[in-house]
Amino acid sequence: MGPVLLTGAGGHVGRTILDRLAEAYDWRLLYFTEPTGDPPGPYVVGDIRDRETVRAAVEGCEAVIHLAADPRRDAPWKSVLANNIDGTHPLYDVAVAAGVERIVYASSNHAVGAYEDDRAPELYRAADDFLLDGTAPPRPGNKYGISKATGELIGRYYHDAHGISVCNVRIGNLNEDHPPVDYKRGQAMWLSPRDCAQLHDRALRAEYDYEIVYGISDNDRRYYSIERAREALGYEPEDNSAEWDGRERIED
Amino acid sequence: MGPVLLTGAGGHVGRTILDRLAEAYDWRLLYFTEPTGDPPGPYVVGDIRDRETVRAAVEGCEAVIHLAADPRRDAPWKSVLANNIDGTHPLYDVAVAAGVERIVYASSNHAVGAYEDDRAPELYRAADDFLLDGTAPPRPGNKYGISKATGELIGRYYHDAHGISVCNVRIGNLNEDHPPVDYKRGQAMWLSPRDCAQLHDRALRAEYDYEIVYGISDNDRRYYSIERAREALGYEPEDNSAEWDGRERIED
Repeated sequence: MGPVLLTGAGGHVGRTILDRLAEAYDWRLLYFTEPTGDPPGPYVVGDIRDRETVRAAVEGCEAVIHLAADPRRDAPWKSVLANNIDGTHPLYDVAVAAGVERIVYASSNHAVGAYEDDRAPELYRAADDFLLDGTAPPRPGNKYGISKATGELIGRYYHDAHGISVCNVRIGNLNEDHPPVDYKRGQAMWLSPRDCAQLHDRALRAEYDYEIVYGISDNDRRYYSIERAREALGYEPEDNSAEWDGRERIED
Repeated sequence: MGPVLLTGAGGHVGRTILDRLAEAYDWRLLYFTEPTGDPPGPYVVGDIRDRETVRAAVEGCEAVIHLAADPRRDAPWKSVLANNIDGTHPLYDVAVAAGVERIVYASSNHAVGAYEDDRAPELYRAADDFLLDGTAPPRPGNKYGISKATGELIGRYYHDAHGISVCNVRIGNLNEDHPPVDYKRGQAMWLSPRDCAQLHDRALRAEYDYEIVYGISDNDRRYYSIERAREALGYEPEDNSAEWDGRERIED
């Protein structure tokens, strides 16, 4: 396929994807600050809110993975408004005008975080069969979650109005190379690095219109359904936090 | 009940409510520009984005009807971002801190406007039995619609995090004292002035947690369900665009 723009290339998810898929795509990269090391493709440094920066980065691309955002779960309103909400609109607007065919958008588990308040910690038990799928309406758990659910809405608008394919990935916890040992919620929503890379790889290649999927590994403790990611994208997770590296599995 | 703050008091919906319910509540009013005439309660003039303005307006209130927004369906992104999205966050934030118990939020039919693209004009036929209820995920028809759906998300967050009761009213077309004669879509989503007043009156008095209802009259051509407004609020619309004032009913 044609060139793929990755925004937020210097962030944790961005580096995870580039580490494993450096050779798989003709990358174009957007960094907020000058990158260290040797980026695997031409890059632009600038602010995601700046239309000219985005225009320069997206030119000639067939697809975009949009990760650039303030990723802090406790980020204040002014920052998520500016970076995450206002930072997503020009990307869609410029991408549609430039003929981009699909956008893979980094949404978040925090877009539905408030569902947990009703049920945690039972929710995190392997025996609990409650699964949240992508059809449940957002219930943001924090202001970061509001901003991510709003990003899904912006994508919905651009899909309906302009036909661009959109896949929203409600990413779980990609915080370590192994799942947390004593933290059940973290085990429930662990996304292993290789599953993260595979999921984004599939999201760049599958055929779809507008999707909302959960980005987690095949964890016993999960309370997000991964069925839609399997069906719509062909996602086949290889990891399960319950089976990690010989550590004792927590029975619960 | 205690004082009720109405934001956007000088707008079309605000005037419609105040005209019919001037004596029913102890109003506090927020105007964007100095009001003409004799407002039916103490008022503040200022920008809805300014926390101090909102704090002064909301002090001592038990409930808020939040109408203040850029109401243009073709409003550009920068305006709906500032006035409608950033203009709704401080209201919730300040209201929760001030002990306000409920917020009635003026959402819009444009939050779900893109559903029409798939089915219009069949949708507007009286014989068509398709009804969109409040559980359907938003599909904004324009950037104004994105901003209104985001306002619903902000309310969802404040309800879940702070327990404030929230009723989102996806208001239809309150553009005339009578329904449009030759415009089927307008007949489908007409909200008569007295039904508008009744609906907001009920939304200020009913018991609920978090609701999304449609604000339209009992129109034959409607494609929004009004069942949830009936059930959750006790709304009993008195008008139907098909029966208005002896005009010939359009058979379709």
